[in-house]
Amino acid sequence: MVRYKAIIAYDGTNFNGFQKQPNGRTVQEEVEKTLQKMANGKEITVFGSGRTDAGVHAIGQVIHFDYPEERPLERMRFALDTQSPEDIAVRQVEIVSEDFHARYLVKEKTYQFRVDIGKPRSPFRRHYASYFPYPLDLEKIQRALPDLLGTHDFTSFCASGSSIEDKIRTIYEAKMEVNETKDELLFTFRGNGFLYKMIRILVGTLLKIGNGRLPEDSIPDIIAKKDRNAAGPTAHPEGLYLYEVKYE
Amino acid sequence: MVRYKAIIAYDGTNFNGFQKQPNGRTVQEEVEKTLQKMANGKEITVFGSGRTDAGVHAIGQVIHFDYPEERPLERMRFALDTQSPEDIAVRQVEIVSEDFHARYLVKEKTYQFRVDIGKPRSPFRRHYASYFPYPLDLEKIQRALPDLLGTHDFTSFCASGSSIEDKIRTIYEAKMEVNETKDELLFTFRGNGFLYKMIRILVGTLLKIGNGRLPEDSIPDIIAKKDRNAAGPTAHPEGLYLYEVKYE
Repeated sequence: MVRYKAIIAYDGTNFNGFQKQPNGRTVQEEVEKTLQKMANGKEITVFGSGRTDAGVHAIGQVIHFDYPEERPLERMRFALDTQSPEDIAVRQVEIVSEDFHARYLVKEKTYQFRVDIGKPRSPFRRHYASYFPYPLDLEKIQRALPDLLGTHDFTSFCASGSSIEDKIRTIYEAKMEVNETKDELLFTFRGNGFLYKMIRILVGTLLKIGNGRLPEDSIPDIIAKKDRNAAGPTAHPEGLYLYEVKYE
Repeated sequence: MVRYKAIIAYDGTNFNGFQKQPNGRTVQEEVEKTLQKMANGKEITVFGSGRTDAGVHAIGQVIHFDYPEERPLERMRFALDTQSPEDIAVRQVEIVSEDFHARYLVKEKTYQFRVDIGKPRSPFRRHYASYFPYPLDLEKIQRALPDLLGTHDFTSFCASGSSIEDKIRTIYEAKMEVNETKDELLFTFRGNGFLYKMIRILVGTLLKIGNGRLPEDSIPDIIAKKDRNAAGPTAHPEGLYLYEVKYE
C-alpha cells in the first residue's frame, strides 16, 4: 500500500458536505467511489483535513488515502480528476510517508468568505457568495478585525452542539478586502484551527458590526462572555471556502 | 401604458435560452410571469435585444415592455428583481419613449467569451467558462484577431440553419486577455451585430489557430470562402456572455 496526499477543490453547492453519511451526496463518498473504480473494486477510505458543511466550498481541501500500487503522480492526479464528478477537481497528488494523516497533523488552516454586497445580487455568485444588501461601514469592520487575532477561548463563536471540549484557538490573520468593482467582500482567516461554524459566526458578527447593530469594539466582550448568544448570526454557507491546509 | 427599458443579467445554466418556447424554462417567460404578477394578472410581453441560446449567460441583456402604470424607477427595479427567480437580476430600469424597441434599434453589441485553460478544470467555472485543456500558443491568437476587424461577409462564421440573408457585419473590436493566474482567457467582441452562433464559431476557430491546427493567417481565407466548413468548431455555450447592448 502506498499513502497518497491530494489537494482537491470542490463546488459545495450540490454536496451534503464533505463527510460520508446515510443521506445525500458527499465529497468523501464520491472520491472513494472513484478510487474504488481505479483500484478494480478494492474499497479505499478517504481521510480529509476536516469536514465542510453542506454548500461550503473548497479550493484547497487536503485528503489522504492508501492505494494498492504506486502510480506516476501526474497519471494518478489526471485519472482521479477526470473520473471524479465535474464538481470535484484534483489539483495535486503526492506520495507521503505512512505516518502522514490529513486530519491529525494539521498545523494551520486558511478559510475565505465571500460576501456579495452589490445591488442587485449577482446571479453568477448566488451559490458562491453570501448576500448582504444592508448598509455597511467597512471601516468599522476593519477596526474590529485585529481584536480577533491571537489565542482566545472562542466558545462564543462556536455553534452549539459541538462535542469539542477545548475551544481555545489561535488566529494568525484576519483581513477583509473589497474587490475592484466594490460589490464583493473577501474575508480571509488563518489560524491553527477553527471550531464548528466558527468562520460563519465570525463573518455574521463582523457584518453586524459593519451594519451598526453591534459596537465596533465589541469583539473582546463577546469573546469574554463565552456565550454563543453574545455573537452575531451564522452567515450562509455558500460564501465559505476552505482555502488552504498546512502541515507540520 | 408606459414603456420601460431594463438591463438584466442572467445565469443561463438552467435556461433553455432567452426566447419563450413550448419546451423548457426561458428568461422571457420568467420575466413575463413576474410582470404579470406585478400587474395584477395583466399579460405583458417582453422584447429582448436578441435571443441567447441554452446555457448562454447575459450581463447586460436589454429588454423592453409596456406596463399599465408609471412607477418610481428604483421601486420598479427592486420589485422586478426580487420577484424574478434568483438566476435573473434586474440591474437597471428606465422609462423610454413609445418608439423605443429593444431589438430593432440595436446599434452595437458586445459579447464576452471565457475559456478555462487551467489544469484541472475549475469546478467553480464549469458552468461559466468553456474548457480547453490542449496546448495553446496565445501569440498566434493575438496575431489572428485583427483579421476579424472591419466589414465582412461572415457566412463562414454563421451556423447553418440561419434564415438571415444578409451576412455582412462589422466588427469594431476583437481582443483576448489572460487573467492574473494565467488559467482563464477572456475574449471580447464588439460589433454592429452578430450572426447565429457567430461568437462561438469565432472562438472555436481562434482556439484551433492557437492549438496549431489552423495557420495563424487563415482568417482572411476562411472569410473569403463563405463556407461554414472552412471555420473551426463551435465553442461550448457556457463560456458566452452577452455583455452590453447599445442603441442609437
